[in-house]
Amino acid sequence: MGPDVSQRWARREDLALLTDFYQLTMMGGYWKTGRKDLTACFNYSFRDLPPHNGFAVAAGLEQLLDLVEGLRFTDQDLGYLSGLGAFDGAFLDYLRDFRPRCTIEAVPEGTIVFPHEPILQIEGPLIEAQLLETAVLNALNYQTLIATKAARIRLACGDDPLVEFGLRRAQGPDGALSGSRAAYIGGANSTSNVLAGKIFGIPVRGTHAHSWVMSFDNELEAFRAYAACYPDPILLVDTYDTLTSGLPNAVTVFKELRAAGRPARAAVRLDSGDLARLSKAAYRMFTEAGFEDPLIAASNELDEDLIADLKRQGARINSWGVGTHLITSSQHPALGGVYKLVAMRKGDGAWEPRIKLSSNPAKMTDPGRKRLVRYYDDAGRPLADLIRLDGEALDSIDPGQASPPVPFAERHDLSFLRAVWDAARCEELLQPVMRDGVRVGDRPTLEDIRSRARAQVGALPEEVKRLRNPEIYAVGLSPPLAAEKVRLMRQAPGRSAPLPPG
Amino acid sequence: MGPDVSQRWARREDLALLTDFYQLTMMGGYWKTGRKDLTACFNYSFRDLPPHNGFAVAAGLEQLLDLVEGLRFTDQDLGYLSGLGAFDGAFLDYLRDFRPRCTIEAVPEGTIVFPHEPILQIEGPLIEAQLLETAVLNALNYQTLIATKAARIRLACGDDPLVEFGLRRAQGPDGALSGSRAAYIGGANSTSNVLAGKIFGIPVRGTHAHSWVMSFDNELEAFRAYAACYPDPILLVDTYDTLTSGLPNAVTVFKELRAAGRPARAAVRLDSGDLARLSKAAYRMFTEAGFEDPLIAASNELDEDLIADLKRQGARINSWGVGTHLITSSQHPALGGVYKLVAMRKGDGAWEPRIKLSSNPAKMTDPGRKRLVRYYDDAGRPLADLIRLDGEALDSIDPGQASPPVPFAERHDLSFLRAVWDAARCEELLQPVMRDGVRVGDRPTLEDIRSRARAQVGALPEEVKRLRNPEIYAVGLSPPLAAEKVRLMRQAPGRSAPLPPG
Repeated sequence: MGPDVSQRWARREDLALLTDFYQLTMMGGYWKTGRKDLTACFNYSFRDLPPHNGFAVAAGLEQLLDLVEGLRFTDQDLGYLSGLGAFDGAFLDYLRDFRPRCTIEAVPEGTIVFPHEPILQIEGPLIEAQLLETAVLNALNYQTLIATKAARIRLACGDDPLVEFGLRRAQGPDGALSGSRAAYIGGANSTSNVLAGKIFGIPVRGTHAHSWVMSFDNELEAFRAYAACYPDPILLVDTYDTLTSGLPNAVTVFKELRAAGRPARAAVRLDSGDLARLSKAAYRMFTEAGFEDPLIAASNELDEDLIADLKRQGARINSWGVGTHLITSSQHPALGGVYKLVAMRKGDGAWEPRIKLSSNPAKMTDPGRKRLVRYYDDAGRPLADLIRLDGEALDSIDPGQASPPVPFAERHDLSFLRAVWDAARCEELLQPVMRDGVRVGDRPTLEDIRSRARAQVGALPEEVKRLRNPEIYAVGLSPPLAAEKVRLMRQAPGRSAPLPPG
Repeated sequence: MGPDVSQRWARREDLALLTDFYQLTMMGGYWKTGRKDLTACFNYSFRDLPPHNGFAVAAGLEQLLDLVEGLRFTDQDLGYLSGLGAFDGAFLDYLRDFRPRCTIEAVPEGTIVFPHEPILQIEGPLIEAQLLETAVLNALNYQTLIATKAARIRLACGDDPLVEFGLRRAQGPDGALSGSRAAYIGGANSTSNVLAGKIFGIPVRGTHAHSWVMSFDNELEAFRAYAACYPDPILLVDTYDTLTSGLPNAVTVFKELRAAGRPARAAVRLDSGDLARLSKAAYRMFTEAGFEDPLIAASNELDEDLIADLKRQGARINSWGVGTHLITSSQHPALGGVYKLVAMRKGDGAWEPRIKLSSNPAKMTDPGRKRLVRYYDDAGRPLADLIRLDGEALDSIDPGQASPPVPFAERHDLSFLRAVWDAARCEELLQPVMRDGVRVGDRPTLEDIRSRARAQVGALPEEVKRLRNPEIYAVGLSPPLAAEKVRLMRQAPGRSAPLPPG
């Protein structure tokens, strides 16, 4: 083993420092000004869905909680920080004894979420809640992005198997690893990533590459050898020429297997060329050779739009391998989630809401500790969500006074109010997941999380799931929250943002 | 610590399984068919630059080599693989004793590279070279992408400091970590990522966030407190309103520091709004208050295009924080690098070149073990690169017969040939970095790598560095390689690709 291998990849015990430097300078400042034990409340939310998306699938929470619970500054970490010359020794001693003490509520992984909703709410010592910002953003932004992308691709695939193939094009080893996990949550059936299989229990799939074929003297010999090694071969048919070489050789091999009494399903993968035309040709060649229902897998720069288009063209593909565009969410590779201070606890124990202003209304924060409530019709379909202040009595709502978040104000008005009025039941989405630094509540398995996502996507109105121009799902602020926001906007220093009338 | 924290993040000892499942099925197949010790040669190259790019900066090699040298299958790995039911016990025993034996040549990190060039060449047992495909692609694709993006942003920034801020929007912890490393290679001066600072020695930077300001009762108090804690404060001025609150409060605090005899440079960060207008206002307010040369840092969804545009508008920004668009290369978040079998060693020791055909000429591989030669003018500027077969005498070249790679055939012709004829000297770019599984040659430091990138970008012709419509740098195939490619295309089964005349 090389001398510094262990230095070159993320290790869990390094992760206290997986943070932005300004979190540490702020922590040092809170410590130095005697403010470290002030109690603060922060919310995680995102401002925009990726383009064309009507919903998102929350993901990344379980890994985040593991990280928080285990957070420690090692001697090596402290030695590094000391060498930077920016921090007092006494502050570093404080970090040495640091143990997480925060309390976290969050929307369970696999839940459908929308812009501006508090997906995670942390209360705890200001100094600690500040530190956690970067970890929260790194874990939730990426995994939510990929679970959401997978859910879209799943919508395009229908019930066909979807294999996530992204490892080679992912953004680093962990981009692949946590990405494979999120893709599975969002609807992939399996992954090519063996480590994700080992760590998360995701089914792994894969057969052979062009190099297998090229390492033999000819393609037929390569196919025969592969079929001799494994019971259910899927033969990759485009190393030389799909129509004149790959498919005829594959038909030959599956006929030989049949003649030998092996009941293999004819199965090929197409990885280039006109997938619609080639899949129809493959289907015709196999069915003419007496193979009913051949497995015809396709890969090659696929995404939900291309899959939907291939289906529209009547392509005979019935299994999809999606790599780059799933694992990176290539059209929109970052979810712009933010983590904002929403309240400070005063000496008397009361919470004082805080707001960040902006000339851009979408960047103005919603103040205060919150509840997130979803309203359903009597068939269990979600109708609208309401962001409420903590402590509002749940039956006190007068939806006639609710406000949509500012950037959506022009998009839903009466239809949003009607949805809340008509609801048959409602549900609080923020659940306790950590208390005083210790995990609480059930730990869902990855299968639980995946099932929740599937059920929730299934229950969403079709209009919200359109791949283009989806209906905007109604999210509003409760009347007390809307009033509080306006009050703070009026009070804030140097305000220049436009204020609502009243 | 939670019971399964150690299961949830990539650990180095897990990385043997950071591979696509089909590599393992192929390995099992090579083993079972008695082909595992055949010797193969694979090349890594990419087919396309990201849009608008004239060049790429190779990165990721050092981490890849560490991974390869330390590659072992642990008992835990083998237990997992055994449980899949797909592999013979004797094959798993073989994996238990697996030690890398391959020989690798590669272009040093920080070298400027172009499409179709062999950036890395592996020779070794077929079974091992196959396994390494995924690790090669995961390491080199992402880091090369990000080093390249950073180099473009550096071109837009001129000599201004460039801070990489991407951790919160990166694709997982390692997307951030190896991304910070690659960004530094490409031209960032520092990072916000503390772990990247600790592991790679990259300078870390950062001051405070909106939450620092919001945790105080007012902005002025927050600024004073921050300035009391750290010697060179950079105050974030857009929590409430930049022009009427943030900047006036910042001027007040820097005046107070001056009055107190602290020689602080006035320094602010703008994170929203019209950065051109606000930076000019900040400059005016500070210079009118007697602060020469204020540091005016900007962030907020910046990329090379926005930076170039802000400079064109005369923005007074002199330090740039770039996050999302750098760490994800957001316009094009994956480099489509591939790893292709190019030759098999026959029983007599001779190498037999192999080719993969495709109806898409860009996907057709260049066969054979190779050299990559760069030609320079007498001022040291690169003129053209030639991909040659290994064993061609370096002085045998008749550039008049060289061919550009197929997809570029229409773009450079005589100008390319002229470049090779006119060269004052040439250089072989592929260097030995591993022999029989052991690293060889010098291990460059990160600073060495970064300096190489800076020097090489500096020497590139300006036309190749344009941010839009760059000139295409000339890359050609040597006459023997071009002839070999045509010969193999003619021989291959079921060929349907168009052949050149002759």
